[in-house]
Amino acid sequence: MANDRPVSNAAAIALVDWGTTSFRLWLADREGTILAESRGREGMMHAAEVGFETVLSRHLSAVEAPPGLPVLICGMAGARQGWCEAPYVAVPALAENLAERAVAVACDLGEVRILPGVSQGDPERPDVMRGEETQLMGLAAAGTDDLVCMPGTHSKWVRFEDGAIAAFSTFMTGELFDVLSRHSILKHAVDPETGPKGVSEAFLAALRPDTPETALARIFALRAGQLLGFAERSDGAAALSGTLVGAEIGAAHSLYPSFETVTLVASGPLAELYEAALRQAGFIVTRADAEDATRRGLLAAGRQIWPERLNGTGRQ
Amino acid sequence: MANDRPVSNAAAIALVDWGTTSFRLWLADREGTILAESRGREGMMHAAEVGFETVLSRHLSAVEAPPGLPVLICGMAGARQGWCEAPYVAVPALAENLAERAVAVACDLGEVRILPGVSQGDPERPDVMRGEETQLMGLAAAGTDDLVCMPGTHSKWVRFEDGAIAAFSTFMTGELFDVLSRHSILKHAVDPETGPKGVSEAFLAALRPDTPETALARIFALRAGQLLGFAERSDGAAALSGTLVGAEIGAAHSLYPSFETVTLVASGPLAELYEAALRQAGFIVTRADAEDATRRGLLAAGRQIWPERLNGTGRQ
Repeated sequence: MANDRPVSNAAAIALVDWGTTSFRLWLADREGTILAESRGREGMMHAAEVGFETVLSRHLSAVEAPPGLPVLICGMAGARQGWCEAPYVAVPALAENLAERAVAVACDLGEVRILPGVSQGDPERPDVMRGEETQLMGLAAAGTDDLVCMPGTHSKWVRFEDGAIAAFSTFMTGELFDVLSRHSILKHAVDPETGPKGVSEAFLAALRPDTPETALARIFALRAGQLLGFAERSDGAAALSGTLVGAEIGAAHSLYPSFETVTLVASGPLAELYEAALRQAGFIVTRADAEDATRRGLLAAGRQIWPERLNGTGRQ
Repeated sequence: MANDRPVSNAAAIALVDWGTTSFRLWLADREGTILAESRGREGMMHAAEVGFETVLSRHLSAVEAPPGLPVLICGMAGARQGWCEAPYVAVPALAENLAERAVAVACDLGEVRILPGVSQGDPERPDVMRGEETQLMGLAAAGTDDLVCMPGTHSKWVRFEDGAIAAFSTFMTGELFDVLSRHSILKHAVDPETGPKGVSEAFLAALRPDTPETALARIFALRAGQLLGFAERSDGAAALSGTLVGAEIGAAHSLYPSFETVTLVASGPLAELYEAALRQAGFIVTRADAEDATRRGLLAAGRQIWPERLNGTGRQ
C-alpha cells in the first residue's frame, strides 16, 4: 500500500480521507508538503468490521509515521455508524467552525481527531454532507467563493458566502444511474460494459438542462427509442447519464439562479462529462482537483487545531 | 381460478388482458355482458415458460367456454418476447386502427387474436405502450376525449384528439419508487412494511408539483430530513411516493399545458393518491375504473373484428 519512502523526521501531521468504500492517508511536513501517502479499499463499511484503529495503524506503519504523530480525519469515519461520531456543524459553516468541532478519538495511536460533517437545518431543504465540507474548506483556503459543483454518487451543489458554506443541495445522480441501469427496465437499454464513453454525442444530446422537469419522462424514452430503432443500446449508458446530469444541472440552475460561474470539483472521466455539460448549460467553469481540495482542507483545519506543528494561517 | 358458473351457450367472445405478471379472462355475451371471469398470476413472463396456449386453455376450461369461441387478447402477450408479436400501431391511433391490425395466433384453440400496442415515432419523444391502448379505446368508446392519466409501474399520460390516441408520455414513477426504496440509500429512509398509507400529510406535503425539476434534489432530502429529526422513517414511503408523483404531475402539466381536466384511469389505493395529487395540482378529475376500461376496449375492438358475433357499434 505504501507508495513513497517516508521522511518521518520531517512529518508534522497525518491527513486521512476515510470514505464509505475508500481510505487515503497523506504524511505532510509543517509546510504542508506531502511526504508520503498510503491508499486502500478499507472504507468505513470494511473498517467497521475489522476495526478502525487496526486499519489506521496499518497505514501509519506503511508510511513509517513516527509514533504519536497527530492524525486528522475527514469523511464517513465520523458518521453515526463510523468510528466516532463527529456531530454535524450547521450552515453557515467556516473552516474555524469545523476545526473547533473536531472530535478526539480515544485510541492508542496518539492524538487522532475527526472533522464534523455539515448540515442544513432548513425543514424545506434539509441536507447533510460528510467529507465534502473538507474539500470545500480547501477551496475556501484557495479563495473560492462562488457556486461549487461536486459530482458523484450524491452530487453536491454548494453556495459559498463570505468564505462560509452558506447553502447546499444534494442530487442522487450517480446512485440513480446505478440503480436504474441495474435494477429497472432500463437494464435492457444500458450495456453495463459500455459506460458513458466520454463526452459523446449521445451524452450531449440527452442533457437538455432547459427542461429538467421532463427528465423523468425521458428516461423511459431511452428504452422506447431503442425499441423503435431511434437509438442503439451501446449509447444507452451515455444517454441515461446525460439525461440525469442534465436534470441535475437544470435543477441546480433553478435553485441557484444568480450564478454564471461554477467551480467544478472532480477528476477523471466524471470531470470531463460535467465540464462539457456545465458549459452547454451556459456556465463558466473553473476546475479544481478533488483530492487536492481534500488535502488543502485537512491542512487548513490542521493548522487551526495544531498551530504549533504547522506553519501558515490556513489561507494560502 | 374460476369465479362464476359460466352460461357457455350465451357466450359470444372471450376477452383477455395478459399483463407482464397477471392474467385476466372474461366471458361475454353478444351484448357485452360479462358472464364469467377467470384470473391468475400467469403473466407473460410465467407463460413464456409453461406455454401461452396451455395457460389460455386452462382458463377457458375454468369458465367452461364452448370450444372454438373467438378469443381477443391485449397486453404483453403481443410483445416481441410474448406469445406472438403484434407490431405497434403508430399514433394517431383510432379503435379501428387497432382492430384491423390484431394478429391471428396459430394455435389449436380456434380464432385467437392479439391487439397491437401503440408507438409514438417522434425521435424527440419516442414512446410505446402495450395494454393501455385497449383501456384508452374503452374510454374513447364511452366518449372520453381529453387528457388521460394512467398511473402504474410506468405511468402513461395520453392526449386524445378526435377520439384517437394523439400523443403520450411515460413516467417510470412506480418503478422509480421500487428501485429507490429497495436498492438505494433511501432504503434507510423508507420502511418497506409501511407503504404510502393512503393520502397522508407526508404524501401531500411532498408533492410540490410546481417545482418538478427539484424532485431529484428532494429525494435525498428524505434521508437528510430524518437524520436531522425533521421527519420519521414511518413517513418515508409516503414522502418518496409524494415526491415522485408530484414530479410526474408537474412534468405532465408542462408537457400538456392546455388541459385543466384529466381522466384518471386507476383503481384502489393508487387511484386515491393520484386523485388527491391531481386535485392539489389544480386539475379537474374524472375517475374511470381501469378494469372496466379494459373490457370496454376489448369489446369495442371485438365488435369490429367479429361484427356478426357482437351487437352494437363499438360506441356506447
